[in-house]
Amino acid sequence: MTIRIAVIGTGVMGADHARIVAYDLPGAKLQVVCDMNVERAKSVAEKTGAADVATDAEAVITRPDVDAVVIASPDFTHASLSLACIRAGKPALCEKPLSQSSQECLEVIRAEVAAGRRWVQLGFMRRYDRSYAEMKAALSDGTLGRAIMMHNLHRNVETPAQGFTADMAITNSAPHEFDVARFVLGTEYAAISAFSPAGADGKVGPVFMVVETTRAELVTIEINNNAAYGYDVRGELVGEKGAISMVDPVASRLDLGLRSTTAYAADWRKRYAEAYRLQDKAWLRFVETGEFPAIAASAWDGYCSSLVAEAGVKALAEGRKVTVKMVARPALYA
Amino acid sequence: MTIRIAVIGTGVMGADHARIVAYDLPGAKLQVVCDMNVERAKSVAEKTGAADVATDAEAVITRPDVDAVVIASPDFTHASLSLACIRAGKPALCEKPLSQSSQECLEVIRAEVAAGRRWVQLGFMRRYDRSYAEMKAALSDGTLGRAIMMHNLHRNVETPAQGFTADMAITNSAPHEFDVARFVLGTEYAAISAFSPAGADGKVGPVFMVVETTRAELVTIEINNNAAYGYDVRGELVGEKGAISMVDPVASRLDLGLRSTTAYAADWRKRYAEAYRLQDKAWLRFVETGEFPAIAASAWDGYCSSLVAEAGVKALAEGRKVTVKMVARPALYA
Amino acid sequence: MTIRIAVIGTGVMGADHARIVAYDLPGAKLQVVCDMNVERAKSVAEKTGAADVATDAEAVITRPDVDAVVIASPDFTHASLSLACIRAGKPALCEKPLSQSSQECLEVIRAEVAAGRRWVQLGFMRRYDRSYAEMKAALSDGTLGRAIMMHNLHRNVETPAQGFTADMAITNSAPHEFDVARFVLGTEYAAISAFSPAGADGKVGPVFMVVETTRAELVTIEINNNAAYGYDVRGELVGEKGAISMVDPVASRLDLGLRSTTAYAADWRKRYAEAYRLQDKAWLRFVETGEFPAIAASAWDGYCSSLVAEAGVKALAEGRKVTVKMVARPALYA
Amino acid sequence: MTIRIAVIGTGVMGADHARIVAYDLPGAKLQVVCDMNVERAKSVAEKTGAADVATDAEAVITRPDVDAVVIASPDFTHASLSLACIRAGKPALCEKPLSQSSQECLEVIRAEVAAGRRWVQLGFMRRYDRSYAEMKAALSDGTLGRAIMMHNLHRNVETPAQGFTADMAITNSAPHEFDVARFVLGTEYAAISAFSPAGADGKVGPVFMVVETTRAELVTIEINNNAAYGYDVRGELVGEKGAISMVDPVASRLDLGLRSTTAYAADWRKRYAEAYRLQDKAWLRFVETGEFPAIAASAWDGYCSSLVAEAGVKALAEGRKVTVKMVARPALYA
Repeated sequence: MTIRIAVIGTGVMGADHARIVAYDLPGAKLQVVCDMNVERAKSVAEKTGAADVATDAEAVITRPDVDAVVIASPDFTHASLSLACIRAGKPALCEKPLSQSSQECLEVIRAEVAAGRRWVQLGFMRRYDRSYAEMKAALSDGTLGRAIMMHNLHRNVETPAQGFTADMAITNSAPHEFDVARFVLGTEYAAISAFSPAGADGKVGPVFMVVETTRAELVTIEINNNAAYGYDVRGELVGEKGAISMVDPVASRLDLGLRSTTAYAADWRKRYAEAYRLQDKAWLRFVETGEFPAIAASAWDGYCSSLVAEAGVKALAEGRKVTVKMVARPALYA
Repeated sequence: MTIRIAVIGTGVMGADHARIVAYDLPGAKLQVVCDMNVERAKSVAEKTGAADVATDAEAVITRPDVDAVVIASPDFTHASLSLACIRAGKPALCEKPLSQSSQECLEVIRAEVAAGRRWVQLGFMRRYDRSYAEMKAALSDGTLGRAIMMHNLHRNVETPAQGFTADMAITNSAPHEFDVARFVLGTEYAAISAFSPAGADGKVGPVFMVVETTRAELVTIEINNNAAYGYDVRGELVGEKGAISMVDPVASRLDLGLRSTTAYAADWRKRYAEAYRLQDKAWLRFVETGEFPAIAASAWDGYCSSLVAEAGVKALAEGRKVTVKMVARPALYA
Repeated sequence: MTIRIAVIGTGVMGADHARIVAYDLPGAKLQVVCDMNVERAKSVAEKTGAADVATDAEAVITRPDVDAVVIASPDFTHASLSLACIRAGKPALCEKPLSQSSQECLEVIRAEVAAGRRWVQLGFMRRYDRSYAEMKAALSDGTLGRAIMMHNLHRNVETPAQGFTADMAITNSAPHEFDVARFVLGTEYAAISAFSPAGADGKVGPVFMVVETTRAELVTIEINNNAAYGYDVRGELVGEKGAISMVDPVASRLDLGLRSTTAYAADWRKRYAEAYRLQDKAWLRFVETGEFPAIAASAWDGYCSSLVAEAGVKALAEGRKVTVKMVARPALYA
Repeated sequence: MTIRIAVIGTGVMGADHARIVAYDLPGAKLQVVCDMNVERAKSVAEKTGAADVATDAEAVITRPDVDAVVIASPDFTHASLSLACIRAGKPALCEKPLSQSSQECLEVIRAEVAAGRRWVQLGFMRRYDRSYAEMKAALSDGTLGRAIMMHNLHRNVETPAQGFTADMAITNSAPHEFDVARFVLGTEYAAISAFSPAGADGKVGPVFMVVETTRAELVTIEINNNAAYGYDVRGELVGEKGAISMVDPVASRLDLGLRSTTAYAADWRKRYAEAYRLQDKAWLRFVETGEFPAIAASAWDGYCSSLVAEAGVKALAEGRKVTVKMVARPALYA
């Protein structure tokens, strides 16, 4: 049985998902690509051989020739389109964040709870990255003993947009770190502090966060969206007996002009290409079987990330530690 | 149009190709797996959902419900099965070596020349590895200037079989190095010298080869099939202006017990999993379009590797440099 | 002219300084080693060929056959012995900290100001480490642009003593980080926050500090005295244009048992052996010329480290950011 | 007792030894620097505070106010000045090579044998480098099992002089590799093969040598004096159980412009500064005690290196393997 997939949104991420569905996902068919900008939709459809194009996302979701939906439209539409998928009974792969508002995340959660099953897989693709898998394994197999700290660092060459603020670094960039640290540690957050040094001239500075967990572990997160030198993500998990660090998987070293050098990616796509492919593959299996993938992020994980991000924004504004207060976790996400 | 594929041979490599065809190759269908050992064929068919099993390779090749063939049976059958595919007009992906006999390779070449087109893609999958791609790019984009030397090193934990000899290291393991160095350098071999130090107690020692090219570059190759510590492949290309080295793409570093450590693979499958996937994907496209993939290895490349391997065996036996004498390259492989 | 040196205190550090003076400091003579424990003093004297042993530190300082003094006795004696050296007009190399009390540091500062010159060089030997020198150079030569952040990490295999507390991590271990970050950045501290996750069973946990500077840079410091896996010091300086990280200067990599490994030192002595030698050499030159070494730490630097450590202890106890309030810097330390 | 030292030759190496003797060698006094070029001698004397300058090397050796001699004059004078030191009964530290002629090396050996003791320590300072020490230890402590191969690689930015030939790469640059591989392996050479690929335009190409030992180990040596990208020395010792590789001891990593980079030295002086210091210190102890340092190179080691270099030149010229035929080792060098 071939799964007919709609991709909603044809920006950078949507175009990437369309390409994966079209060329790297056996058992899937790219049925329709949808974008308010019909020209952009057509352009992606041409490159990927999509059967159809559309502009009305809600209508696409209810089409009978669409079995499942990838939501890669602008962030503010994620929650409402997820709700539409739940109403239509169509499994969705929703790009992060589910919503920047934790309240809106709760609406999605309530809809899934009411429906009695999960429909939404969230695009925290780092869970499918080999580095984090090896970290998680070093914890679960006892190599490291109990976790003590996790350090996370995310650097971009430059901010994704003009007018990017420190708050946006917390709500937009940091959720990947919030989610993956929760995922690796298997823990929940209790409190967050945030700091922001002066940036380069005319540019927003980094944000540095210290997050305390309910088990008294410490998670540090640096978000530096004007790092200039390259796209660089690092992580280190420190346990009782030792530590494990992410290694950027470079393929060659170049010796030239009195330097030995390795390359940084300019952005995240090359670094996480394999994680995206594996994530989308796991999601297709979820669509086929109805069984939520063991390591995928759910709507609940989306809520947790957004909630701590909200607390982080407050912590930065007020210059003090802010407590993270979660609602009770519904049994559906146990 | 779905391509119906037969996989002949269900040893380690055949089982891997069957898995790739079944789960990672959009547009392909695993039609039949064939092995003289029917139980082994059935076992692989079960894991991969193959439509059918068979035991007679020649018969499988001519089946009307088979569009293309992966040849992963024992080495000595590669050439004759390739010839059968050419006769049947079925594109083949043949595991290396095409034949350990350069004369037999020439038979395949003559058959393709007679047929007026290439039917056989050879499984030198390293050409699809990112490390070699970056080396080749550093040469072709002028970063390194002209090539001067290439150092290659191949180490296994232990020999694949009892009774493995230094000659087998040259004819069985070294062809990957012979091919990939030719591929990266874009050159042909002129002469080879070979040396073999004493091995560990009761084990065959490494073979070290120095190969001179027609452009007076130097290619060194160490094959150490009893390296004990891990599966380790390295390469370094040295040019006029600088050098580029392969980096083993590890994903994490573990700090434990006064050591900082990264992992070696136990064998080649994890190290080259992505190269195999990309190679098989390129081959599927070759099946669909008839256009031979730009970087894939042809029957001619198989001949070149086998020829230099034969010279290497002679060089080792006689303790002297042996000249490599190639036939003229048919226009089909220009 | 040979400089006759007294080493006071023959614990780990005192014994090391005695060895350096005896064997690696041309122009110096190890005149006397002094320890309340006369047997320990004798043992070190034997190993180093010291001319004499003594037990009364104050008396040693005033001996006419002693030109200069290395103070390596217990921490609480550093300030009073430094004052004795100032009174006697003898140049001192005082192990860190000058005092754990910033008030006591000020007494030493006032004595030097009254004397009209500096007599005390403080043993913050990391200033002589090549890694920090390269960081500082990358800042001063404009490579990195202006500094944004500096991350520092200090890990020991285990705490130096039973009953070691998080406060002691701040006052005893962190001063090296406080000083070297000030040294590299050329800045002063404005505020400090401190966090301490749960440690391994029955052991004190790490301390993580976020220090803000008067120029709105951010300095993070992890002190983990129960890291178990090795002695590990790291640093990263992040600027507007790029970043520079310390690399642990290992000399070999060992491939064994499916791992590629490098060694961690068990403690700081091997890691900083060369820094200690260069520091002591610079100090000897200070003794000879009266000219304070350009990069050495002064009593003022000792005060700055102790002051921020005191604020750090308070920040940890109160779970909030604490402001660092420095006295005006006397002209002597301009 | 202070040892009064004469440094003969004030080129790069002589000036370095003069500096070490003057500033880093407790117990030594730089009594005289000697060079046929008196201006150069004066210049070095000024920088190092040498007591005297001279131009006649033989006369310097016999001066009563000279206790020991560093020979750093041009290569062709090494043997005759070493003989003069033996005649005068003055311990010498002779820069490598002892002589490019193995016959001339034998003259020095015969003179020492006649004198009944060793007077000459040869400046193969790599024996004092930490990387080789760790390799040797991994062999002697059983970590690696028995040795199988050693790979050595020596690259310079450019040839030291116009008219530098492949033969000179063998006789002038390779001796360091010949010696250090013998030192690490504790073996003797049996045969050598040599190859030389085409170099960069107008420049001499590298030389690649394969040396077989009397215990059937294999030593490979690449000498590339026009490597362009940096001064780079590598070594790898491969044993039955694993392998150990030299790591260039860098102190920092710089992230800039989409690359992560570490620095290469422009020449050998920084890379081996500590090895030179330790070597000269060991030699001073030899002068004081008459006891030849355990790991230092003797006249015999100088002979062994020159002998294999001569065979290497022949092997390259004749394009075939050349046997190395050593004289019997005198008991003095057992």
